[in-house]
Amino acid sequence: MIFGTQNVRTFALMFIVLAYLMFGAAVFDALESKEEARLRTAMRIRMARILYKNDTIQNDTIFHMLTTTIFEHRHVRTGTAKQWTFPGAFYFSTLVVTLIGYGHTTPKTIGGKIFCMVYTVAGVPLNLIMFQSAGERLNAIISFVLSRIKRLLGFRHHKVSGFELIAVEFGMTTMLVLGGSFVFCKQEKWSYFESIYYSFVTFWTIGFGDFVPLANMQRTGQSLYSRWGYFIFTVSFILFGLAIMASSLNLLVLRLAQFHSESDTGGMSALLS
Amino acid sequence: MIFGTQNVRTFALMFIVLAYLMFGAAVFDALESKEEARLRTAMRIRMARILYKNDTIQNDTIFHMLTTTIFEHRHVRTGTAKQWTFPGAFYFSTLVVTLIGYGHTTPKTIGGKIFCMVYTVAGVPLNLIMFQSAGERLNAIISFVLSRIKRLLGFRHHKVSGFELIAVEFGMTTMLVLGGSFVFCKQEKWSYFESIYYSFVTFWTIGFGDFVPLANMQRTGQSLYSRWGYFIFTVSFILFGLAIMASSLNLLVLRLAQFHSESDTGGMSALLS
Ligand SMILES: [K+]
Ligand SMILES: [K+]
Repeated sequence: MIFGTQNVRTFALMFIVLAYLMFGAAVFDALESKEEARLRTAMRIRMARILYKNDTIQNDTIFHMLTTTIFEHRHVRTGTAKQWTFPGAFYFSTLVVTLIGYGHTTPKTIGGKIFCMVYTVAGVPLNLIMFQSAGERLNAIISFVLSRIKRLLGFRHHKVSGFELIAVEFGMTTMLVLGGSFVFCKQEKWSYFESIYYSFVTFWTIGFGDFVPLANMQRTGQSLYSRWGYFIFTVSFILFGLAIMASSLNLLVLRLAQFHSESDTGGMSALLS
Repeated sequence: MIFGTQNVRTFALMFIVLAYLMFGAAVFDALESKEEARLRTAMRIRMARILYKNDTIQNDTIFHMLTTTIFEHRHVRTGTAKQWTFPGAFYFSTLVVTLIGYGHTTPKTIGGKIFCMVYTVAGVPLNLIMFQSAGERLNAIISFVLSRIKRLLGFRHHKVSGFELIAVEFGMTTMLVLGGSFVFCKQEKWSYFESIYYSFVTFWTIGFGDFVPLANMQRTGQSLYSRWGYFIFTVSFILFGLAIMASSLNLLVLRLAQFHSESDTGGMSALLS
């Protein structure tokens, strides 16, 4: 079963996406690293100038100048470690191809921005095809296991319905969110509710960027290399969560596809049947 | 032609989405408005405390404290006008259901976060169905116009191919981006290249939030009511851009649907044929 055509294709796609992410990480790292240091210095100089003549921010204008300065540099790291290391750039590439785009790191150079656009056009469809394939495989595995369980429990019908599949995937997503949230609580000092909200915003690919794992470390000075375990956990959490979402979506798309080839009206009823 | 079933359904869906956005705007506005004022005061007090004993940021610790304070409040407006007005909340609702999520405004209260999650679960599929329907209508209109043009130009075959449709849509998207960028250049003082980069990041629904139209006005004190023309332009630009993207996607999904109902291998070849 493991070496079936579908499985080989899925693993090959996963490998291609991984290679594509590493390629992106290397290029973004090379393009952005120098600019990052320059921007941090520029920000500090501007803040120092504002505060040189003012030792208070009771004045509205000073408050405004200072916050605007920092706001304009909100995507610039303020600590001593670099954001655009290889793992940092790999994280960024993942957030681009999945369309999450937290925005805690963004390309600042023209070269980085151009490469980002090209990288998106090729990377997003590639990643979608991979998720589609992985989602379809996940459905097959769940169906297989569920059918076995049904046989063991002595059910008369072993066949697994689409509804049962979606229910299992919903359960898996819930468990992933509830379990992963414990880790984020501990590592990021978020509340449990905030961690759940974070997972939700991520798995729907909204990616506000109000809660971003690893961002505080990237911003304030810790190297991601020193936190590699948590780094791998975070990227895996995101990719696995999106894969389960894709499996559910895969089922819905298949239903829609059946509908499209069968009739020309009632898209909603096909979705709900 | 205007009152055909498909057209009526599409207009009805557009109307439902509009109503849904206005409903979201009203609730988010009600939930978040008070907290917003409280957070702004809290930020100012913390900054004042840091600067009370320090009239310089040459010290690394002070620099770090100050930037961290503002970074943690990066989604808080610093000016005198409110972000969570009705148009601000409508803008936010649009960014949620389209999955763009710039993150320049995010819910800060627990109630706002919970409502945001519920709002997403219902709003995203609703918006997708609307875009799917609008995209399909757009394709029909383009086909009709293109076929008329071909007849006028004396072509022997009037039938419009999928390839021609995608080419026209690609041209439309390009024109929308190049045209819209002029407006953003002028209104936001972005460079032309930055405006194009912004449109790209938006239409692919990445939404980093490094460039956000209206955000500076929202943050620094101008009311969105006073800029209603530009506000309507921005929301229309985003929705229309995504609708064209959805039309192209619609063509690809239809191809995929044909493939799914015809055979079981070669998804890529179906996409490329
Ligand atoms: K985003
Ligand atoms: K997004």
